[in-house]
Amino acid sequence: MSKTIIRAMVLPMTEPDLFYPQGEIAIENDRIVSVGIKGSVPAGFVPDRILELPNDVVMPGLINTHTHAAMTLLRGYADDLPLMPWLNEKVWPFEDKLTEEDIYWGTALALCEMVRSGTTTMLDMYASMDQVAEAVLMAGTRAVLSRGLIGNGPNGQRALEENIDLVQRYHGAGNGRVNIMFGPHAPYTCSKEYLQRVKAEADRLGVGIHIHVAETLDELKILQEQYGKTPVQWLDELGLFGGHVVAAHCVHLTAKDMDILASRDVRVAHNAESNMKLSSGTAPITELRAKGVVVGLGTDGASSNNNLDLFGEMRSAAFQQKLRVDSTVLPAYEVLEMATRGGAKTLGLEDVGMLAPGFKADIISIDLDQPHFYPRFSIPAHLVYVAHAGDVRTVMVDGKFLMEERRLLTMEVSKVCQEAETRAKRISAELNG
Amino acid sequence: MSKTIIRAMVLPMTEPDLFYPQGEIAIENDRIVSVGIKGSVPAGFVPDRILELPNDVVMPGLINTHTHAAMTLLRGYADDLPLMPWLNEKVWPFEDKLTEEDIYWGTALALCEMVRSGTTTMLDMYASMDQVAEAVLMAGTRAVLSRGLIGNGPNGQRALEENIDLVQRYHGAGNGRVNIMFGPHAPYTCSKEYLQRVKAEADRLGVGIHIHVAETLDELKILQEQYGKTPVQWLDELGLFGGHVVAAHCVHLTAKDMDILASRDVRVAHNAESNMKLSSGTAPITELRAKGVVVGLGTDGASSNNNLDLFGEMRSAAFQQKLRVDSTVLPAYEVLEMATRGGAKTLGLEDVGMLAPGFKADIISIDLDQPHFYPRFSIPAHLVYVAHAGDVRTVMVDGKFLMEERRLLTMEVSKVCQEAETRAKRISAELNG
Repeated sequence: MSKTIIRAMVLPMTEPDLFYPQGEIAIENDRIVSVGIKGSVPAGFVPDRILELPNDVVMPGLINTHTHAAMTLLRGYADDLPLMPWLNEKVWPFEDKLTEEDIYWGTALALCEMVRSGTTTMLDMYASMDQVAEAVLMAGTRAVLSRGLIGNGPNGQRALEENIDLVQRYHGAGNGRVNIMFGPHAPYTCSKEYLQRVKAEADRLGVGIHIHVAETLDELKILQEQYGKTPVQWLDELGLFGGHVVAAHCVHLTAKDMDILASRDVRVAHNAESNMKLSSGTAPITELRAKGVVVGLGTDGASSNNNLDLFGEMRSAAFQQKLRVDSTVLPAYEVLEMATRGGAKTLGLEDVGMLAPGFKADIISIDLDQPHFYPRFSIPAHLVYVAHAGDVRTVMVDGKFLMEERRLLTMEVSKVCQEAETRAKRISAELNG
Repeated sequence: MSKTIIRAMVLPMTEPDLFYPQGEIAIENDRIVSVGIKGSVPAGFVPDRILELPNDVVMPGLINTHTHAAMTLLRGYADDLPLMPWLNEKVWPFEDKLTEEDIYWGTALALCEMVRSGTTTMLDMYASMDQVAEAVLMAGTRAVLSRGLIGNGPNGQRALEENIDLVQRYHGAGNGRVNIMFGPHAPYTCSKEYLQRVKAEADRLGVGIHIHVAETLDELKILQEQYGKTPVQWLDELGLFGGHVVAAHCVHLTAKDMDILASRDVRVAHNAESNMKLSSGTAPITELRAKGVVVGLGTDGASSNNNLDLFGEMRSAAFQQKLRVDSTVLPAYEVLEMATRGGAKTLGLEDVGMLAPGFKADIISIDLDQPHFYPRFSIPAHLVYVAHAGDVRTVMVDGKFLMEERRLLTMEVSKVCQEAETRAKRISAELNG
């Protein structure tokens, strides 16, 4: 039994305009007991610890709804290239050299960065996902993990078996911190039959599906040539939708595609910065939200971003929509909502993403006593338009502190950084002499 | 006489690919004496101090080529509104209430934030510019200052006299740290005659001109109706170009406009984030640079950004061009160049923006020993695509340390933040009851 009280400014993200300038949160074990003004903790709640953060705003931990965590090892390895040479000549040859241990350490590096920037949950897609699960269990964060499945590749069958195995071994692990989805890569890398098998397995095991959809115009062209359909219409026709599906990117959509996503309750992981850096385009997030589609924010992998900072991603998501539509769309509170409760809904996590009684205690604090946060007119606007990753002071996941005063408590940062550096440089040396 | 040696990784920004993993810079008084590998300091140079920063990269201070510093007081006061209600109902009524002292403290707040995010020089446009000059002299930063001139307003004549007075009192002040330009606001707020008088005064006093140009489609419409010309063609025809001119924004340009800017050597201050947040559009920076136009980066004021962080601005500038053109344009080193030497050229500062012998010692260090900077494949890519404002450890301007270990040495941060908070809230209370 652990009982903690945090006193700070509190932005619960349960409803717009709700903000406690002098707030208080009570936490028992992994869950929030109460949220309110100072003095609102229930009578009889005797804390082991009271954390006083009068200059910090406390809010739900941020949720990264689409990433490839271990790709931190490729950070800065290849930038500013056209998409296909970047993939063919740089990313894929590098990834071919990754060992299971490399993926563990690359993921650990990502988790160090995520915790330091206030991200408490990620949806990941990669290989060697048992290593990723172990890194998450070690770090203490929350994650939904999916084995990337290239159905058309030589390992399609084995990868699917690995994903099934992953569900059986890790779904619900770590007091429910780790959950599993299936990760068919994309409609152009998986056949109809393969996707239908994935869907059948997901239904059988009661888990969701995480897939890249309509990221680039090239993908649209391929699908049009192969099937005469858009990616969304193709996936709908073959029966992939209907259960819990996270569609990453969704940059290029028709009005009919958006209606399908809305009616099938497909959740969208929006990756504003990756879509800009790779010149993929601007996803119609304003329209998707107007149609009622649940949207979360993602960073994508570190090699197309190049950081895993959701504060930057919030800003970019707002700016990109304002540039495309007008200055009124995606106001600050809505962006925060996408990065917290919207992210949790995207991932199918019912008790995550808000500070409310009964919810999981995934909580971050941001140090507002810095020049760039003055004057304090609007805390939501400050968090979206002003804050940087480095402003996060405290991180708690599942009721346990992972960072205090910017010091990581579960990971040895210098060891993780050195392992990542050594392993990435080893691969680069093998490839480039 | 002061003599300092800094040992660190060094990115001099004098030529692409020049990087010293173990570098050394010697500084005497306000200028750089030598830059090279460890041990390259001239024989006989006996330092008062040696600063060892083995995990930091040292580079030229960043240059903000377009801002309205005192608008930090409006940070978060009004966001997510259409442009005209934002200006008419929020920004202008607030600005009408600003006293000279408010502008001093708002500028001081901006300078605290700028130093903490590695910006050593700004080009400012506002009112009460003697207060701004005093704040810059106090803070120890470098600045080029212009009095904002609304020629068509009731104070057009008085403001022009203030700008003339500003040149006479502050041009070259603080060992050359402060310089002055004229600040006619825009071609739609100043008449032909007024602009010609400004140009004559600028020529007479030997200083440059700083003006907003082609920021919005509304501006183009107004100029088309009034003069039947684009803003650039109108300003060229009335004779504003030819000397040193900084044109801020330049979002909406024809090919002919770009040719005029290139042939007249007009320098462009690009404000990627403000242009996105206000939905102004995407400036054709790729094309301007291809035509040889000098381009610097700016944040614009804090009420349309909402921070003054040039690291974020570098990232956004790159991403916005890649989104508009393709993933290869504005590679990382070119973006760094725009934020350093390009910015200095934009402002007409001949001995600023590179780490080279004889140049002013405006130097920053960035702490690379953090998870988000591993692995260390490309330092330029890390600085543009990964770094945050909070990663800056050390700032020196004109040979004097303004920040060490993130502690500001010339400004009392808590006092500045409290003054700004009190003053901004006073105005908001006056306006909103």
